[in-house]
Amino acid sequence: MLAKEGISMSNNKKYNVAVMGATGAVGQKMLETLEKKDFPIESLKLLSSSRSAGTTLKFKDEIYTVEEATPESFENVDIALFSAGGGVSKLFAPEAVKRGAVVVDNTSAFRMDEHVPLVVPEVNESDMADHQGIIANPNCSTIQMVAALKPLKDQFGLNRVIVSTYQAVSGAGTEAIDELKSQAQSFLDGEEMHAELLPVKDEAKHYPIAFNALPQIDVFTENGYTFEEMKMINETKKILHDDQVAVAATCVRLPIFTSHAESVYVELDQDVSVDQIKALLAESPGVTVKDNLDTQDYPTPLDAAGLPDVFVGRIRKDLDNEKGYHMWIVSDNLLKGAAWNSVQIAESLVKNNWLTK
Amino acid sequence: MLAKEGISMSNNKKYNVAVMGATGAVGQKMLETLEKKDFPIESLKLLSSSRSAGTTLKFKDEIYTVEEATPESFENVDIALFSAGGGVSKLFAPEAVKRGAVVVDNTSAFRMDEHVPLVVPEVNESDMADHQGIIANPNCSTIQMVAALKPLKDQFGLNRVIVSTYQAVSGAGTEAIDELKSQAQSFLDGEEMHAELLPVKDEAKHYPIAFNALPQIDVFTENGYTFEEMKMINETKKILHDDQVAVAATCVRLPIFTSHAESVYVELDQDVSVDQIKALLAESPGVTVKDNLDTQDYPTPLDAAGLPDVFVGRIRKDLDNEKGYHMWIVSDNLLKGAAWNSVQIAESLVKNNWLTK
Repeated sequence: MLAKEGISMSNNKKYNVAVMGATGAVGQKMLETLEKKDFPIESLKLLSSSRSAGTTLKFKDEIYTVEEATPESFENVDIALFSAGGGVSKLFAPEAVKRGAVVVDNTSAFRMDEHVPLVVPEVNESDMADHQGIIANPNCSTIQMVAALKPLKDQFGLNRVIVSTYQAVSGAGTEAIDELKSQAQSFLDGEEMHAELLPVKDEAKHYPIAFNALPQIDVFTENGYTFEEMKMINETKKILHDDQVAVAATCVRLPIFTSHAESVYVELDQDVSVDQIKALLAESPGVTVKDNLDTQDYPTPLDAAGLPDVFVGRIRKDLDNEKGYHMWIVSDNLLKGAAWNSVQIAESLVKNNWLTK
Repeated sequence: MLAKEGISMSNNKKYNVAVMGATGAVGQKMLETLEKKDFPIESLKLLSSSRSAGTTLKFKDEIYTVEEATPESFENVDIALFSAGGGVSKLFAPEAVKRGAVVVDNTSAFRMDEHVPLVVPEVNESDMADHQGIIANPNCSTIQMVAALKPLKDQFGLNRVIVSTYQAVSGAGTEAIDELKSQAQSFLDGEEMHAELLPVKDEAKHYPIAFNALPQIDVFTENGYTFEEMKMINETKKILHDDQVAVAATCVRLPIFTSHAESVYVELDQDVSVDQIKALLAESPGVTVKDNLDTQDYPTPLDAAGLPDVFVGRIRKDLDNEKGYHMWIVSDNLLKGAAWNSVQIAESLVKNNWLTK
């Protein structure tokens, strides 16, 4: 089932929209998604750090010049989509809210703040009703997983999740995309690969990502898990409103440009058939089941790239635990994992009249 | 701890060795390993199908011409290392045994045969004592996992394994290596990628592997698992002599040339510390712990390539199950996963006087 295009509204009101981080990998997808969904825009403001200010970008055949963000940039803005790093969000999101904007923040800055709803519209749209100006967009790897887990939890009960991820470099931004391209070409030319960015730009050690696998995304936390892994664990519990569900994650960066894949093991409260799970997921919003072994149909990152759906395949029963199931979940990390979900949140704010508080 | 180089023997006997499939990705590594370990060779015979016969290969500064295998090729052969596909093994291994050779078979042809020992020398060397002419080398993804699991099982008890793999294309042979190279270059040049081989040459559908992830290795079996996944499950139980241990696997092919990585979750019988696990693995044969978060030390496929060790890192406790642990296991799939393990088996046969029955 494809996520719906456009929104139905009771009036023809249009909104002043700002995109913070417009030149980034996610920012550009936000613009594409706003255009594709024909979001009702009265005026559009493209913002960035001083470094990218002055860049020109096209939106609906008009050329926009990216401006350096200041607190005043958010005067008269109704909806501000943020994707310029956690530091920028911490600095400017409160300024935007102070000036009456509602912020949809794609960084990790406010996700675990108890006053900030963390939303995947198909999963917990109503959490937005109580927003206080900022709504957080979950981590890309979390979004696609909870989109598939929520229907399972509601229908069959969920008590255990163990996920190993296969994550694309675009999650680390345009620089990481360039680094993978450049390293891959060097390797194919028999030359040395230069690693200056991944796994984490500001850390001491960098590993080549081309033709490699890096079991580190974001920095390590004290318990031995990376921050990315803890995001998946904590955000999943918050979005599902369930502190008791056991979640474990191993997050791995791979030489893939677009789409994250996940090998997910779940334990449900019930012993159900694989067909029941397929039927349930097939009718769940935003989820598309792609799972036919006879025709070798299963999701892959390349096939999912550019599409808004969360694709699920390889659904099968554990051979030892009758309530255990394995599946393979793939989605475009820049779309449902980021830009698409952010614009869905904006649409929901409009549709439900939650924009003005 | 590096696997030891060379073997100590009580005499200076040398052996007539045949390598079946000498021109393949594993066959070439078998020759390199025999040379590196200075295996006591009296005569060396390189064999292949008719297609590769006539190829010349170098071994210890001598040029050898690869011969087309016939049953008679194995006359006077003491040890035959097979890695030319399951069909070839089924056809020729019994012929070799009939002529007095001991076969070390790197294909899946005989692995689950109850009369054939399935051996990782560090784990179950003594299973070879009762061989009946054929000793099977386990699947590459199984070998590296059981090398790390065996000490844990012996010391702390093991009752649950859930593994998601990150597997290199070289496991599918030299053609797959060429396909990845060619596709990657096409992608970087903005051209269409041609997929003719992976995931499984003889199946109807082929997907590009460059900058992608394919959740299918080998064909699907009736229970929804791939044959590769069932190999990991069944071989692990056979090697560990434990039908009760629960094993689940999801096997994924990635755009990596060399080394398989594995995200492994285990449940032990005891609640032990991560330091105890690290200490135990650090002193286990063939296993090297590479796990220091302060210095971002963990194994990667590129770093493991060309080395015989099984590397283990990212060892950490599950946050919900006090007897649960996660780890990241990496090893060169052509070495410890294939050629190195096969030559280790041959060394063990010699050292223990198990060659003649």
